[in-house]
Amino acid sequence: MALLDDNRLFPTDSAGRALARALYDSVKSLPIISPHGHTEPRWFAENQPFPDPARLIVVPDHYIFRMLVSQGVGLAELGVPSADGAPVETDGRRIWRRFAENYHLFRGTPTRMWLDDTFQNLFGLDVRLSAATADATYDAIAERLTTDAFRPRALFERFNVEVIATTESALDDLAFHRQIRDSGWTGRVITTYRPDAVTDPDVAGFADNLRKLGEITGCDTGTFAGLIAAHRKRRAFFREHGATATDHGHPTARTANLSAAEASVLYDRIRDGAGSAADRELFRAQMLTEMAKLSVEDGMVMQIHAGSFRNHSDGIFASFGRDRGFDIPQPTNYVAALKPLLDVCGLEKGFTLILFTLDETVYSRELAPLAGAYPCLRLGPPWWFFDAPEGMKRFREAVTETAGFYNTVGFNDDTRAFCSIPARHDVARRVDCAYLAGLVTTGRLLEEEAYEVATDLTYRLAKEAYRL
Amino acid sequence: MALLDDNRLFPTDSAGRALARALYDSVKSLPIISPHGHTEPRWFAENQPFPDPARLIVVPDHYIFRMLVSQGVGLAELGVPSADGAPVETDGRRIWRRFAENYHLFRGTPTRMWLDDTFQNLFGLDVRLSAATADATYDAIAERLTTDAFRPRALFERFNVEVIATTESALDDLAFHRQIRDSGWTGRVITTYRPDAVTDPDVAGFADNLRKLGEITGCDTGTFAGLIAAHRKRRAFFREHGATATDHGHPTARTANLSAAEASVLYDRIRDGAGSAADRELFRAQMLTEMAKLSVEDGMVMQIHAGSFRNHSDGIFASFGRDRGFDIPQPTNYVAALKPLLDVCGLEKGFTLILFTLDETVYSRELAPLAGAYPCLRLGPPWWFFDAPEGMKRFREAVTETAGFYNTVGFNDDTRAFCSIPARHDVARRVDCAYLAGLVTTGRLLEEEAYEVATDLTYRLAKEAYRL
Amino acid sequence: MALLDDNRLFPTDSAGRALARALYDSVKSLPIISPHGHTEPRWFAENQPFPDPARLIVVPDHYIFRMLVSQGVGLAELGVPSADGAPVETDGRRIWRRFAENYHLFRGTPTRMWLDDTFQNLFGLDVRLSAATADATYDAIAERLTTDAFRPRALFERFNVEVIATTESALDDLAFHRQIRDSGWTGRVITTYRPDAVTDPDVAGFADNLRKLGEITGCDTGTFAGLIAAHRKRRAFFREHGATATDHGHPTARTANLSAAEASVLYDRIRDGAGSAADRELFRAQMLTEMAKLSVEDGMVMQIHAGSFRNHSDGIFASFGRDRGFDIPQPTNYVAALKPLLDVCGLEKGFTLILFTLDETVYSRELAPLAGAYPCLRLGPPWWFFDAPEGMKRFREAVTETAGFYNTVGFNDDTRAFCSIPARHDVARRVDCAYLAGLVTTGRLLEEEAYEVATDLTYRLAKEAYRL
Repeated sequence: MALLDDNRLFPTDSAGRALARALYDSVKSLPIISPHGHTEPRWFAENQPFPDPARLIVVPDHYIFRMLVSQGVGLAELGVPSADGAPVETDGRRIWRRFAENYHLFRGTPTRMWLDDTFQNLFGLDVRLSAATADATYDAIAERLTTDAFRPRALFERFNVEVIATTESALDDLAFHRQIRDSGWTGRVITTYRPDAVTDPDVAGFADNLRKLGEITGCDTGTFAGLIAAHRKRRAFFREHGATATDHGHPTARTANLSAAEASVLYDRIRDGAGSAADRELFRAQMLTEMAKLSVEDGMVMQIHAGSFRNHSDGIFASFGRDRGFDIPQPTNYVAALKPLLDVCGLEKGFTLILFTLDETVYSRELAPLAGAYPCLRLGPPWWFFDAPEGMKRFREAVTETAGFYNTVGFNDDTRAFCSIPARHDVARRVDCAYLAGLVTTGRLLEEEAYEVATDLTYRLAKEAYRL
Repeated sequence: MALLDDNRLFPTDSAGRALARALYDSVKSLPIISPHGHTEPRWFAENQPFPDPARLIVVPDHYIFRMLVSQGVGLAELGVPSADGAPVETDGRRIWRRFAENYHLFRGTPTRMWLDDTFQNLFGLDVRLSAATADATYDAIAERLTTDAFRPRALFERFNVEVIATTESALDDLAFHRQIRDSGWTGRVITTYRPDAVTDPDVAGFADNLRKLGEITGCDTGTFAGLIAAHRKRRAFFREHGATATDHGHPTARTANLSAAEASVLYDRIRDGAGSAADRELFRAQMLTEMAKLSVEDGMVMQIHAGSFRNHSDGIFASFGRDRGFDIPQPTNYVAALKPLLDVCGLEKGFTLILFTLDETVYSRELAPLAGAYPCLRLGPPWWFFDAPEGMKRFREAVTETAGFYNTVGFNDDTRAFCSIPARHDVARRVDCAYLAGLVTTGRLLEEEAYEVATDLTYRLAKEAYRL
Repeated sequence: MALLDDNRLFPTDSAGRALARALYDSVKSLPIISPHGHTEPRWFAENQPFPDPARLIVVPDHYIFRMLVSQGVGLAELGVPSADGAPVETDGRRIWRRFAENYHLFRGTPTRMWLDDTFQNLFGLDVRLSAATADATYDAIAERLTTDAFRPRALFERFNVEVIATTESALDDLAFHRQIRDSGWTGRVITTYRPDAVTDPDVAGFADNLRKLGEITGCDTGTFAGLIAAHRKRRAFFREHGATATDHGHPTARTANLSAAEASVLYDRIRDGAGSAADRELFRAQMLTEMAKLSVEDGMVMQIHAGSFRNHSDGIFASFGRDRGFDIPQPTNYVAALKPLLDVCGLEKGFTLILFTLDETVYSRELAPLAGAYPCLRLGPPWWFFDAPEGMKRFREAVTETAGFYNTVGFNDDTRAFCSIPARHDVARRVDCAYLAGLVTTGRLLEEEAYEVATDLTYRLAKEAYRL
């Protein structure tokens, strides 16, 4: 029994479906460009087999465990590590059974489609996951995971990944990336400069992080000028490990353009934790502009992922720590927020700033008009909760009429769920082809153009925007 | 002549239409669960005939008279009771004529579909309402209303209502509910605890309401502890009259978590009207959290209907009072607003909080992510202005990919227009079946699953969420 | 080769497409009512040939040059006049080549459809614009522009324009409108009263503008009462030149209702530039209410176009000045903002206020509920970035269920791109017919009603709402 409909996500009218199918056939085998995500470089460095099915698929995937939690299953029952030392389930098979018996909860979600794709196309399963099939599917997947064909590098090649970017803290030593490079393996795994730990005063251990950054770089991070110099050096170090981009995960998109003197005074107040919440927000804002200025210097593509209210539940945070599915989007303004940065760098040749949002209302109101004017701006694909068929469709419908296709940058899988990467790219390719087919069947695009745009959205735009 | 298209609201592609039809056929005869609404218990208690067609259909329905007012018809001409004693139209037939000659204004609105359904399926009319048919339709409906088959209880049974919840003030004596219960009639009409009059200091007569609450319960509502004790007793009284839920209609979703001492000080300031607007908002916020804590205690399902700017027109309010169609939605934030309550009760076993909104932007940005994480949260159906085919479609498209189906609670008709109840449920069933059919024809759901989900959305989820 | 699909923008299902086609055929030849826009009266007064293709089509159209700029082409390279005296490209052919070689950027945008329509239907081209066809298309268009058939009045007649409104500053002498009227030409070109220069203290030269208004009208604009008297006289002067409407382009929709004394004190503070930003916003707010009161007096229809953050890029503004594609929408609230004005004028017989927004979230949340209640309110068509097929579709889907069709006012082209006017109206007619066809095929509207509504949306509603 097939778990997947071969025509999934295509239009329902026959002309649209046939054309979407043909467009998809033209791009489905293109290599995967994965310019932003959270896979672990250790996997590719060490190339050890993945652990059991539950630890591979359920335990690390917040899309999966948050849904189960929302219906009353405990994180501990799912084996999610606790922060407070309380015991959690350790039996992979029991975790898998809890997941399997609740698989109906994922009806209508992208997780369901990604999983069915993984089950069918990666693990060769032909029975649907359910309480009844829990053990059989567990055993089948577990058996495959012991084979060499399912080790990280083999999967990387099987997935036809041309390049994948991981994301590391500015303080990371990038040892795994060096190990990959030195191993002689030809898979291209690059890093991304993610300096939140030393740009955001609300990150735990900020003062300590600044001290470490000083040690690593030999710069005096006790001064604002020294801090910037340290970033400059650290960025160069990341570029040596393949990085072409930076990423910034701030609660808002606010930027600032303080004078050097003002920035120094602010930094002094912030450094030892004395600043107010407003000071800390202003500091983050200023640091985005500083990062933009460094990008103008060194050519690294800048990404802003703004608008998540992290760790919304005090109780979950206390018991399980961060990244536990309780990060909630909030309204995010980009128009006033980005103006200071754009007034400094917005017209600079060669500067690229890719914007992401968790607030869909800004697609048509703010992001498409901004990206449809400023030469540096590009729109990242639908992010997180919106990386799903309807979310993707709304993105195209909301931004294309104002910003066109060429101010967008193709797809990001943005995932730590390695096995889901082909499925995620497949969904994006199908949805884009369906959208293009719809433009053709309603007389808004020529068929020959649609083929060209399909390739652009699947492959070329991501490579060009991220300079890969 | 049929007033209704038998395939209304189904997809236009043949496969989608056939499947939607089949799904709909599987649920169209299921009993109506109406867990939240504003019908009057007096109807079922006294079982008297409804008055003339205008007073049954036009005068009490703000969906109808607001549209007529927006095109220049006066509320007085429509017989809507005035607040200032000015005379209003009393001739039902003249009111009906005004309505009939403006029936084209409702083109494209759900009101039009609900009315045509009522005319055809309840009153057996086969001519479309217009100036030309005003008198004939009036006479036909008026004649039916004199018969026993059109009395409230007969309609309740004819509508196949399994249970209906009305909404009463915390100060209500629930005499009609007792009368229904004592009558021996088997129809299940339950109440809902709506305590705004004694939780919201902006409600007219707040101080007096607190005094009455004290008298009714024998609690000292002069203290905050006494106020909470009074609520506890009153909730128990409502449960004796069938209530399984509470409902809270605040202008915002703000909650607070003050200490007992802080709450007492605030209450003292509020009680006699001395508090500022900020104090009053904080008090409402605190009372939502208090209600949540009581729900954890007593198991009543909590509902929040937030975000209406009530009585927007000073002129209409002065002349006609409240509920006159001039309540306007406003932007509403849930992420920061609900955090205090959720930090107190959000992980409590057995607690259910159902959220409603008039700000659609929060579906995908806030409500689906929150409900897709917190075990207590569920999403109410599209409310008020959004209880219509496109509004329902946007709701499903916006929330399902993040929260799935099982964090939603089926349909609420939320109406005081009794005759429209079957039509409203019918629209919801059709739209849900169309949505499910679309998921199947685009490969996102199996056909067999769609049948199960259709039943869940129509019947099971409402019963379970509201503990009916 | 046809540049356009004859069935563009119609539904893809066969029944929907056939009906949309039939509806469209019934309205496609109706005269154009253009009640709001920015064509230049000088064209019709002097009736001189338009300049070369680049200066006609590329240089003045911010939709076109902003997209090119967003992909790295400079405004100077496109011949857009500089504000700082720096030289810009003057060779129309070279500008045209830059445009042509980047024509793929417009894929999926309305600009592409408007241009292809203009190329095919106005200029008779049968090759698609590209680098390869740049010179040939330039020559073909340039040749046509030298002929009498392509002069402004001939085009006006060819376009079947029944009436077109231009927009002039309150300080304009309307000489061109007089010249048109006195010329004996029968084309109806009317003006619109746009007083931002003397209502918005943030407009450059505000104090000087007030002085000029005093001179023109003979009123003492040194007092608030004199300012209002001057507006009253000036509005009468505009009405003599055909104006039936006023237009107000404020950054927000805020209104106020100050006492005469308060308004005078505020005006004194504002007049010489001493007021704070909050004072200036309050003054704009008060002036909207003053304009509404004058509309109640003189019957002019009032329009509010709110929510644009003008001249977002300091760099572009310094080099090229205003209207250069860097106006960005921002969140706009109408509910609290309009209440003061509506409490004064909202129930006045004969008053019409047409609302426009760049914040789509307010369609269903604020504008449709407001317009579906207040008799004076009407909803303008999708504006600026939303004047495109998906934008129009979202507008109808968001507002119709609450406000119906009859609280909307048909289409505005709102353009300074004269040649695009037929194409823009054609897109609106097609999208509306497609929407209506969808209502019929899903059983929400009768076919006979759809024909009536199609005519209303195309022709009648604009004429009636704008009193033309």
